[in-house]
Parts: sequence; structure tokens; C-alpha cells
Amino acid sequence: MEGDRPANGKGFQSSINNAFLLLSSVMPDFAIAVDLGGTNLRIAAVSTEGRMLEKIGVNTNASGPDHVIDEMCDAIQRLSSRHHGSGSRIGAGIGIPGIIDLDAGVVRTSANLPGWEDFPVRAEIERRLGARIYLENDAKLAALGEQWLGAARLVDNMGMITLGTGIGGAIVLNGKIFHGMNGMAGEFGHITVEPEGVPCGCGNRGCAERYASATAVLRMAREAIAAGNAPELAQAANAEAEFGAKSIYQLAIEGDKPAQQIFEHFGRALGIMLADIVNVLNLEMFVIGGGVSSAWDAFAPRMFQELRARSTIYAATTPQDAPTDGSVPARRTGKQTVIARAQLGSDAGLYGGARLPQL
Amino acid sequence: MEGDRPANGKGFQSSINNAFLLLSSVMPDFAIAVDLGGTNLRIAAVSTEGRMLEKIGVNTNASGPDHVIDEMCDAIQRLSSRHHGSGSRIGAGIGIPGIIDLDAGVVRTSANLPGWEDFPVRAEIERRLGARIYLENDAKLAALGEQWLGAARLVDNMGMITLGTGIGGAIVLNGKIFHGMNGMAGEFGHITVEPEGVPCGCGNRGCAERYASATAVLRMAREAIAAGNAPELAQAANAEAEFGAKSIYQLAIEGDKPAQQIFEHFGRALGIMLADIVNVLNLEMFVIGGGVSSAWDAFAPRMFQELRARSTIYAATTPQDAPTDGSVPARRTGKQTVIARAQLGSDAGLYGGARLPQL
Repeated sequence: MEGDRPANGKGFQSSINNAFLLLSSVMPDFAIAVDLGGTNLRIAAVSTEGRMLEKIGVNTNASGPDHVIDEMCDAIQRLSSRHHGSGSRIGAGIGIPGIIDLDAGVVRTSANLPGWEDFPVRAEIERRLGARIYLENDAKLAALGEQWLGAARLVDNMGMITLGTGIGGAIVLNGKIFHGMNGMAGEFGHITVEPEGVPCGCGNRGCAERYASATAVLRMAREAIAAGNAPELAQAANAEAEFGAKSIYQLAIEGDKPAQQIFEHFGRALGIMLADIVNVLNLEMFVIGGGVSSAWDAFAPRMFQELRARSTIYAATTPQDAPTDGSVPARRTGKQTVIARAQLGSDAGLYGGARLPQL
Repeated sequence: MEGDRPANGKGFQSSINNAFLLLSSVMPDFAIAVDLGGTNLRIAAVSTEGRMLEKIGVNTNASGPDHVIDEMCDAIQRLSSRHHGSGSRIGAGIGIPGIIDLDAGVVRTSANLPGWEDFPVRAEIERRLGARIYLENDAKLAALGEQWLGAARLVDNMGMITLGTGIGGAIVLNGKIFHGMNGMAGEFGHITVEPEGVPCGCGNRGCAERYASATAVLRMAREAIAAGNAPELAQAANAEAEFGAKSIYQLAIEGDKPAQQIFEHFGRALGIMLADIVNVLNLEMFVIGGGVSSAWDAFAPRMFQELRARSTIYAATTPQDAPTDGSVPARRTGKQTVIARAQLGSDAGLYGGARLPQL
């Protein structure tokens, strides 16, 4: 994301141009959304009807929380004053990768934000802004965004699965994030899909994310290469500096059997996980997003096969000829379990962050 | 249950005597609860504060819905008039084993009630009573009862696992049954715990209830006997007309290794299933009930071992020395995931049925 931001701190020039066009017509009420990453911040102003008014990026160079929060508050003020015409700012939602203590307003653990643990994030931001803000886990905000404006905009209840280096999860009930007791509801990635399977960092074996994530795809490829029966994968691994899930997917759709086998494992694990979630929650829709969801064609056929075989609820509610391309039926016919691809890409979390203060 | 009811149709004489004692003091508002089984009906009047005022049993001889509904409405009227003094009937909740279409007020499928499918149960009862009634799945009513007055009375959010011939499940959020889209949320028994395991009637393989139910215990015992390495089990199977989960549990606590092995499998499957549910829902409490939960001593140690290893949420929220006897901590210290045994026995569903019209 660094390249997205010129030194003048504005960035996303085309978005800004669009925003100015919008500004010239009407000044709607808006909310501020922040997506806090390990090396960059993204900050947006989104109208209460869900229009992206402006979006800027700030490189944080992995600095500590104090400096990052300074930059963040500065950008929030800038955006707010630019859009504060006839409309007014109705709040700010801030997405953070990691486990957030929502009561305390503190980051408990975050692999991507070393040094942020137990820092009073919410209190510091509120002190500098002089306004109330809302913290939330980034995967949960992405779900809220998809429910508000994306794939799940026609339903009030949905689950979201984010396929990245691991698997993120979230549950939205009645249009609100369902947190459970500690804000940890939706830990789909650690559902056991292979009881004696690959060890996971969480202490379990055979967690779904050990088979259905970018990390898992790379591990399975390295194992196939080491076993000596994946010549194309071996060649790609040698030739490409950034050998990873994307290159392995490319080989799979070009017909390379060992690469296809990897996405069969992926789809099987994801199908078992999804069947468990459908059996527990019986929700209207499950949205699959995250970078690795772009390998849909390679893993989805096996995923749907497992899901139908392993969840009576799915089989009972979903016709055999229901689309498996991740599209959302234009009109829902009866009570059908829909498995859809996310539609808002990396902006889902920004839309979700803007939605949060409105709930 | 047939033996419980004398020919005069009153039955449960001691409960009635208790009820009359209560009646002589104060006449509270009350609700009627019905537990509809394959061969008998249980009907109760429960005060709005949760006291069992009276409970009667009616043998239905597996007659068709028309006759059973006649008997049911007759008993509801009898109970209502006996308790209609200064207090008034505030509604009736009716528990039915099977899949209920809540919108239509119809039983969709029920293994125990052949001939009831698609019969307009709610409409027929309401027509005869001239009053609104509430239908619900019996396992879900048991959960509601435990949340109102039993093991989970200190929390608003809980899951319930009923161990019987299969595994029943239910989720209660904010003190109300969470139905999901079709009333099927909480299908815990069909969570996959062994992806290539024992085939299940649902079409899946390795469902939790194939390992952690009365049926599963008996199957595993028969397999051990057939393999020729379970002499004590073989002897019991020959000697006892009603050889089943209870006798196998008895052998396990007496130290018989093959019988203990069966409950190790049971506890392992239940632990994997529970870990998945805790990871998805992150609720305050999960209550384990049903007839087979009385084998707690035999399966719980392994269940807790798997649960702790396989759910980071459980491990992070529950101290190592938390009780594993299924008791409920007198005071909840912080946000802890409690796994407790059900406390209301077979009356849980009646209490739940009486709670339903009050929500």
C-alpha cells in the first residue's frame, strides 16, 4: 500500500477527485473509518447512505502507537473538516487486526502491531479528538461492511470467512456484529477439520486454517516439492522471488495436477468448516472474502461438494442447481442458504468502520 | 412413563398433592407447558416465577394427532380451570420432538410422531382452546428451561447439548431461543469430528452423534464384542435383556478397559464438537443434559482435555483448575466459559414450555 500514497499525504487522487465532484453537489452526513495495518493506515469519509466520499492512505513505517495515533487523529481531523459542510460527522470506527478488548478499549494481542498490546488505544484517540470512537477487529468490520453494502446487503444475518494468511471470521446478527462473551465469536479458522492433522499455533491439530489459507497453500506446495513429485511447482518455486498462493493457483488453473491437488485439500477443509458453521448457526448467508478467495475456481467445487454432503441444513435449504460461482441470487426464493463471494474487496473494512457509529 | 398414570387420567399424585398445598396459599399467574412424546403427553402448570404447580401424564397409545390433540386440550382446560383463581393463564408452550415449521405451525419431520407430518398442529390446538399457543422443538425448550431456572440461570447466553439416542442442540441468546433462518440453528450433533469416520443417517461421515450418544455407545460395544477382545461386555450383552449405554457405563466405572475405551472415544468426540461450538459462539455457558449425560464421570475427563487443547477461547477464558464435575461456580469470576451439567432433568422441557409464552 505504500506506493499508493504520495508524499503530500493526500493520495488516492482519483478518489479525491470523485469526492470533490460529490462535494460540489450535496454535503451529506458522514462517518470516519480507519483501517489500521502494520505498515499503513487507511482513513475514509463515508456518507451515512454508504457513499465513499474520500479515502486517504498514511504510511506509518511501523512506528509505535503514540506516533501512529498522532498521524491518525491528524488525518481524521483533516477529512472531517473537508466534509463538514452542511453534513456532520456522526462518529468514527477503527478497525484493528488482532484481539481487541472492547470493554477496555485496548488491543490484547496483534501479530501485525507489535508494541500495541495493552496500550490504551481508545482513550488516547478520544483524548486527542475530543470525541467518542469505536474500536473493532478488522475482520469483523469487513463482515459489517459486506452486510451493509456488499454481498449480504439483502439479509440481516450472515457469517463472513476471510481467507488470508489465516482464516478470519465474523458473525452478524440483525445487522450488528455478534461478539459473544469476549468478542471472540466467529473463530472459524480454528474449527477442527482433521482431528490428528497438522499442528496449529493455537495448540490444536488440524485447524481449518492449516489447510485453507495462503500459508497452508504454500506449506502444501513445499511438501509436494520436497516429495519430488511436483516438477512444475518446483520450477516455479525456484524461478519466482514471490512464489506463493497466487503462483500455485495459476498452475492449478493451467492444469498442473499437484497444484490442483492442493486446492482440493483446501476446498475439502473449507467445506467441512462451512458445514459445521451452517449446522451451528443456520444463517441466511455466508460470505467468503480475503485475498485467497480469488482462487475460488480452484477450491469452490470441492468446497460445495463437502458442504452439501456434510450439512443437512445446507442440503435441505439449497437446490442442487443453486449457483456455485459465489454470486448472490437477484431475488431470494424462500429460505435458502447462500454461499457468496465478498463484493467490496479491501474497502469492506472501511465501510464497516463507517457503519459502526451508526448502529 | 405409561406406569406413571392411573386410569383416572390424573397421575403424578404426589405432584398434585404438592400443588394443592401451594394452591391453598396463593394463586399466582401461570403458564401451561406440554411435552409431547411418542407414547405419552406430559402437561404442567408452572407459575410465572417458575414454580411447578401441577404436572399430569396422559398415555396417548401412539394414536393419531386428532385424538392426541383432543386429549391435550382436555388436559390443558382441566389444569387451567384448577389454577385459574386469582391468577390467570398467560399462555401455553408445546414441545415437540422433531423439526417444526414455526411460521406454519406444522411438524415437518419427527421420528417419534409418525402421522403428524404437515398436520396443522398449532391451528387445531388454537381452534379447540380458543387461545394462542406456541410450538417449539423439545430440545430447544429444554435449553430455555435450563436458562430460566436451571444450570444457566445466571447467564443470558448459553448453548445446550442433549445426549440421548442422538445429540440435540440449542442456542439461547439474550434469554431467547436462537432459531437461525429455519429454526435449525444448534444442529451440534452433525458437526464433523472425524472426516472419514462412521457414516451417519444425515449423509455425512463422522458426525459427533455417531460417537457421543446412547446409540453410538452400543455400536462401539458391539464392535468391541465382535472383535473378541471385550469379554465383560460380551457377558453383559448375553446376560442382560436391556443391554445398553447404562450397562456399558457401569462396566466402565468398575474398571473394565474396553468399556472405558468406549467412553474415551465418546469424550474425545464430544470435546472436539464442544471446541468447535465454543470457537464459533464464544458463549458464557454450555449445558450438557439428556439421559447419557449421567455417564459424566466416564467421558468428561477426556472431553475437557480435548476442549482445552482444541479451543483457544476455552483455554484463554477458563483457569486450569476450573471444576470439571459439571457444577456451576457460585459466583462467576470474570468472563469464564463454563461447561455445566443440566439441573432440571426431564422437567427442563416443561419449564421451557412455560417460559415460552412469557417472552
